[in-house]
Amino acid sequence: MNTRRDFLQKITASAFALPFVPKPALINDHERESYQGQVLKVAIMGLGSYGTRVADAMQACTAAKLTGVVSGTPSKVKDWQAKYNIPEKNCYNYDNFDNIKNNPDIDAVYVITPNSLHVPYGIRVAKAGKHVISEKPMAMNAAEGQTLVDACKKANVKLLVGYRMHMEAKTVEIIRMRKAGEFGKILFFQGLCGFRIGDPNQWRLNKALAGGGSLMDIGIYAVNGSRYMIGEEPTWVTAQETKTDPVKFKEGVDETIQFQLGFPSGAVASCLSTYTMNNLDRFFLDGEKGYAEMWPSTGYGPIKARTNQGELTHPHVTHQTVQMDEMSAIIFQGKQPIVPVDGEEGVRDLKIMDAIVQAMNTGKKITLK
Amino acid sequence: MNTRRDFLQKITASAFALPFVPKPALINDHERESYQGQVLKVAIMGLGSYGTRVADAMQACTAAKLTGVVSGTPSKVKDWQAKYNIPEKNCYNYDNFDNIKNNPDIDAVYVITPNSLHVPYGIRVAKAGKHVISEKPMAMNAAEGQTLVDACKKANVKLLVGYRMHMEAKTVEIIRMRKAGEFGKILFFQGLCGFRIGDPNQWRLNKALAGGGSLMDIGIYAVNGSRYMIGEEPTWVTAQETKTDPVKFKEGVDETIQFQLGFPSGAVASCLSTYTMNNLDRFFLDGEKGYAEMWPSTGYGPIKARTNQGELTHPHVTHQTVQMDEMSAIIFQGKQPIVPVDGEEGVRDLKIMDAIVQAMNTGKKITLK
Repeated sequence: MNTRRDFLQKITASAFALPFVPKPALINDHERESYQGQVLKVAIMGLGSYGTRVADAMQACTAAKLTGVVSGTPSKVKDWQAKYNIPEKNCYNYDNFDNIKNNPDIDAVYVITPNSLHVPYGIRVAKAGKHVISEKPMAMNAAEGQTLVDACKKANVKLLVGYRMHMEAKTVEIIRMRKAGEFGKILFFQGLCGFRIGDPNQWRLNKALAGGGSLMDIGIYAVNGSRYMIGEEPTWVTAQETKTDPVKFKEGVDETIQFQLGFPSGAVASCLSTYTMNNLDRFFLDGEKGYAEMWPSTGYGPIKARTNQGELTHPHVTHQTVQMDEMSAIIFQGKQPIVPVDGEEGVRDLKIMDAIVQAMNTGKKITLK
Repeated sequence: MNTRRDFLQKITASAFALPFVPKPALINDHERESYQGQVLKVAIMGLGSYGTRVADAMQACTAAKLTGVVSGTPSKVKDWQAKYNIPEKNCYNYDNFDNIKNNPDIDAVYVITPNSLHVPYGIRVAKAGKHVISEKPMAMNAAEGQTLVDACKKANVKLLVGYRMHMEAKTVEIIRMRKAGEFGKILFFQGLCGFRIGDPNQWRLNKALAGGGSLMDIGIYAVNGSRYMIGEEPTWVTAQETKTDPVKFKEGVDETIQFQLGFPSGAVASCLSTYTMNNLDRFFLDGEKGYAEMWPSTGYGPIKARTNQGELTHPHVTHQTVQMDEMSAIIFQGKQPIVPVDGEEGVRDLKIMDAIVQAMNTGKKITLK
């Protein structure tokens, strides 16, 4: 039972949000059909549960289209071909994958594998001349993440990270309000991220595949959220680990981490990352003039959010639908999201996560450069 | 402007709750007049804003009555005599106060002075043979607090600390639910306590009078709350201080402290104590089977609380009215509150607060015995 990923959601096929604006306008089917821009043709690599979620969401996209798959499991490929109408010539396995470079039906590959494969496969995608979309965390650590940034730069392809919250309407509205000064000077952020993880044999609990435990998978939302909610980069971090089940959570796989961040303005963040608790997924931002709270804050939706000015009522649109349309605009039109989703953004999070692990292991306050 | 203490509240003269039961029954005026038990006759020492709040609240008490005052300011004494109908013979100053021992109209003295005077004056009260009620924090540190516990034991008088939340109906109901296992195994508590303090010259910002800063005054609610919400005593503490205004918050006067507590079961608490932020006063308790949240959680009310089972609808009764009636029952009838309000309870909090300050100053995890 993986509660976090069991969140129910409906794909509203007729609803498409224009992200990065406070109140997304809905585009109806007519408008959708009349879209004249370039369509991002995407192959998904890794046909697991999250890959399926993205594929389903992409059925409602206007500016992006699922055109290919990469998988080592032929039966899965067959299923996807049937379900998503994918031609044989756009199906790859890990042996023949490099041939993708000659396929004009694929512009980008979305790497949705276990974490340890994001960088090696991302580099292969880049070398094949395709844009790279990496699921988060983009790497096992910041240094490895940087090699992917460098490889994409060298290959002259774009690198984007699956930060779907950067395009979620209520999140975007709160960031807009914060930037407009509506909360006044920002003083405090709280991010409580976690869920009670099920199957002890899944790759997320395997250090070699996941790179860690809850922090890599779900705590990253609090790290990333603290940055886009406060609007600054942290200068120090402290962290405390608690492990109640060392059989399920082996050496190097964190169960629960409390971590604290300090920012140049004096704002502070108190965060929790856990694989043992439900009822979390809470953000709280406090400023001198107002506040925002979100609960759920990063789940697949709908997000619930309110500020001191009242409830946010932006309609829910499947996050991954918005994300993929926006990524198309970023790649083809050079659109700038309100918070970046590029490789540098991914490395920034990983540097902080590296420091959290260091703080946790040493008991020391770690200064960030 | 002292927002925390500016909370508006109405004294509902006809409403009196029976605390320590989940749903307090209201006693009407008729029942009130028919109360046959012993009435606790109380003198208030320290006629500041909180003393006035307690005096006002006591006008609605059934089992307790304001009968005297102790103050160094004759004009205040005059005002109180007129307002609360207090006879001259029950008025004391700090010179003649020890004569109170011969006054049968006073059973207990509620010490509502700056923190540094709680123990020295509490000891004088005990030596005069009167029960001691100390406002929180009961002392400047645990060692000093213990001297008051010892003095009261020696003088054979009761010592109670002004922990009004231990009698607040919604708080009591959540503790009852937790004890009944309705939230399952408890995993996490969060207490965000603070407000933006005003006048920089007030005693609360004077180390010699207050013993510290926000932690002594408002962070104590998170310390105390973590214990009664989780239902265990912490075994370790870590803490991080942030100071943005060293002029207002001088050496030894904390502005903002993030602190974390670990408990024997593996439950953890993330807390914030601050004199710089509004919109806080939030508790969140998370268990395997459910949760509770309170916002506001410790203000003068009304408290707002809900659990996974729904909103708590217990009617608001002025906390200090309930507190003083309950303290009468504790003193005269040996009643046991759901969470103790005795001197030992006060010392327990102070030991943790001493450790928080030590953790904050050393950057080390402090183990509690």
